[in-house]
Amino acid sequence: MTVTRTAEREAEPAVPSHPVRIGLLGCGNVGAAFAALVAERADAVEALTGLRLEVARVAVRSVSRARSVALDPAVLTHDTAAVVTDPAIDVVVEVMGGIEPARTLILEALAAGKPVITANKELLANVGPELYAAADAAGVDLLFEAAVGGGIPIVRPLRESLRGERIRQVMGIVNGTTNYILTRMTESGASYHDALAEAQSLGYAERDPTADVEGYDAGAKVAILASIAFGAAVAAGDVYHEGISNITAADIDFAGRLGYRIKLLAIAEEYDDGAVGVRVHPAMVPLEHPLASVRDSYNAVFVEGAAVGSLMFYGRGAGGNPTASAVFGDVIDAAANLRTRSAASLGTLRPARIRPVDDVESEYCLQLEVADRPGVLAQVARVFGDHGVSIRSMEQDGLGDRARIIFITHVARESDVQATLADLRTLDAVRQVNGLLRVIGTGGSAR
Amino acid sequence: MTVTRTAEREAEPAVPSHPVRIGLLGCGNVGAAFAALVAERADAVEALTGLRLEVARVAVRSVSRARSVALDPAVLTHDTAAVVTDPAIDVVVEVMGGIEPARTLILEALAAGKPVITANKELLANVGPELYAAADAAGVDLLFEAAVGGGIPIVRPLRESLRGERIRQVMGIVNGTTNYILTRMTESGASYHDALAEAQSLGYAERDPTADVEGYDAGAKVAILASIAFGAAVAAGDVYHEGISNITAADIDFAGRLGYRIKLLAIAEEYDDGAVGVRVHPAMVPLEHPLASVRDSYNAVFVEGAAVGSLMFYGRGAGGNPTASAVFGDVIDAAANLRTRSAASLGTLRPARIRPVDDVESEYCLQLEVADRPGVLAQVARVFGDHGVSIRSMEQDGLGDRARIIFITHVARESDVQATLADLRTLDAVRQVNGLLRVIGTGGSAR
Repeated sequence: MTVTRTAEREAEPAVPSHPVRIGLLGCGNVGAAFAALVAERADAVEALTGLRLEVARVAVRSVSRARSVALDPAVLTHDTAAVVTDPAIDVVVEVMGGIEPARTLILEALAAGKPVITANKELLANVGPELYAAADAAGVDLLFEAAVGGGIPIVRPLRESLRGERIRQVMGIVNGTTNYILTRMTESGASYHDALAEAQSLGYAERDPTADVEGYDAGAKVAILASIAFGAAVAAGDVYHEGISNITAADIDFAGRLGYRIKLLAIAEEYDDGAVGVRVHPAMVPLEHPLASVRDSYNAVFVEGAAVGSLMFYGRGAGGNPTASAVFGDVIDAAANLRTRSAASLGTLRPARIRPVDDVESEYCLQLEVADRPGVLAQVARVFGDHGVSIRSMEQDGLGDRARIIFITHVARESDVQATLADLRTLDAVRQVNGLLRVIGTGGSAR
Repeated sequence: MTVTRTAEREAEPAVPSHPVRIGLLGCGNVGAAFAALVAERADAVEALTGLRLEVARVAVRSVSRARSVALDPAVLTHDTAAVVTDPAIDVVVEVMGGIEPARTLILEALAAGKPVITANKELLANVGPELYAAADAAGVDLLFEAAVGGGIPIVRPLRESLRGERIRQVMGIVNGTTNYILTRMTESGASYHDALAEAQSLGYAERDPTADVEGYDAGAKVAILASIAFGAAVAAGDVYHEGISNITAADIDFAGRLGYRIKLLAIAEEYDDGAVGVRVHPAMVPLEHPLASVRDSYNAVFVEGAAVGSLMFYGRGAGGNPTASAVFGDVIDAAANLRTRSAASLGTLRPARIRPVDDVESEYCLQLEVADRPGVLAQVARVFGDHGVSIRSMEQDGLGDRARIIFITHVARESDVQATLADLRTLDAVRQVNGLLRVIGTGGSAR
């Protein structure tokens, strides 16, 4: 029967008369939630679309391990080839994570003419362009809504709804762990370490939290978003990173008094010369900005387009069920496309020219501890002026020995601000320079 | 040539070797912005997709009228048939508005095998199911992202990304005029009439603002959203309406002191028995809820799904450029589908069983002006209890003759709350019952 079907496929559009048979690579948290969702929603989806979906095979390391979803033991296998190359499988879902063997298996599945759905951000941020090209060459779908923003529909809107739009900027809170930590610090005044410990005890943060708190996870996601939004091949290694581990309760408190929340933002911009900037760093977000009210482990992605203006997409950025929901939407789409032999394509990604972070422009906030004596402010202001950094607002906080001056600049170049900082540190009257933070304008732009 | 092409189409997939020729019905604000966007982005879209798009014909009432976009006079015509039935046109864009002749023209275009993009909410909320069925019968696209939420991608995510999801509730701010008015009342303390006048002077509100301020516009949009989200044919006439013209500055102020913002919400829910509730009314939204921070003329739609949890889609709900951007995304999609002869389908909509508003459940806020004497509270509380309405919180505001008691209920049935109100009005000690407002829970649900 299988052989007949393959022969048919070569001759005419693939209209599966049998159920659409899904092969799963991996069955962890997301895989198990996905299998449960397919079982639960198969009837409803069939009524709506005429497509009968079933999880037909699941490749796992341990066939005997207890799982949170009741799977027919007959579908479990050690043999990944039984998923990626066996003609009995119509659609492949990769939820194993990591770069290898996921990359090789996906390439094999695509070469065998099978659409692939993946939730693997690390993979796409490193070898995405190779995989997108392989999918195009095979004329099948490679869909990955779940790789960024968990359950939030963001990849499809960027790929399809906004395909005609000139996207200027994508800016988001795409890591739930760090947003949870910053929310706790903001709302309960907790220290970074206490908030991290709380996130770990709730399972929101790993025992080794580096990938989250230093911005690597957000960096992989913003590389993928930049690739789709700008049609340019941006990789994880192109992203400038600063994490949140140096943010103190005092920073949060002081930002709050100025009318800002501190958020870890992932920002991708395309400049008029076609260069692309991609960076992850904490930033002060004005309270009126929609990203300021994204709390706890929620994610949100803000998109700025030339015609459409500002858009925001908000929801659960992680977790088994939301991520499985995004995978499921992609699987239904791929299954429907199998009927018509059509496939979504990202088009050809041009090589990305990355603008170094030194040349990126933003507004900045600096706190200086200074000696409270006449003439100090003029000295300090002159240093800003020497480097062409223009001051938007200045405020003194505290008196005498405890005096701090808080400067917010107009839009300035990173390298000019760094040079300003270096010179300020040489002034006798400046005791300390604290908390350089980028500031997001109320207009929503990071520029 | 045209004849040849039609003959070809019957024989094999339509792969236009010529540009994809778009015919426009209407050229007002949105139509002109769309034509300008096509001209501006045609090269970029061709580079990305291989599709060359051009506006080839525009049917207008007045061929000689000055327009904000430079159109080749040769493309303008009085003759709608030159757009909807002429084989020289590949894709039809309807931006004329109103039910007739838009309905007839769209049916003719679909019957002629042309995909149709429409931004016409009034049309879809009244005769949508007839049009969706006609598109399915013809096997071509009928896409309408721009009909709800302007430039916000919400229709496509509901139709595609969330197709496998059990959607419980869609709740949104889908009318920019009323959101602008309520924002002005909240932020500057303006009266309803002053804020309306300001909105009118800025062009955000019509001279006759009824359709906006009484919730008819939002009602049409929520009918469309309910149809897609629940797969049920919900019409504008099924929607329960209350507008904002009775909201006072005092209501806004008092809601603010309790930690809420007043928003005009459009709510669609599907209950466990398959019935659907659709309603538009002002509601108190807790400050922490993402909808509370949607300001000015922005729109946002909150979606609650069983697996995905809470999602929100935010952006410009109206205006020429954002709306044209949504139309453009749909046109690119329809043009790509022409190549593969595929089309998106909503599936078959079941008839909707509408739950009457009397049976709908919500939390409520009531303000009573009462005589400040012993035993009054017990009397009042007894009336609530008699009707099975449970009180979540009670607060006295003011003293003596100016005393008001503010009650917020737990979730209660509308008819029970109305019966409670009627009985409260018969009590001697109750001078007045003010401001019955529904309250949205912090969990995000209106139930």
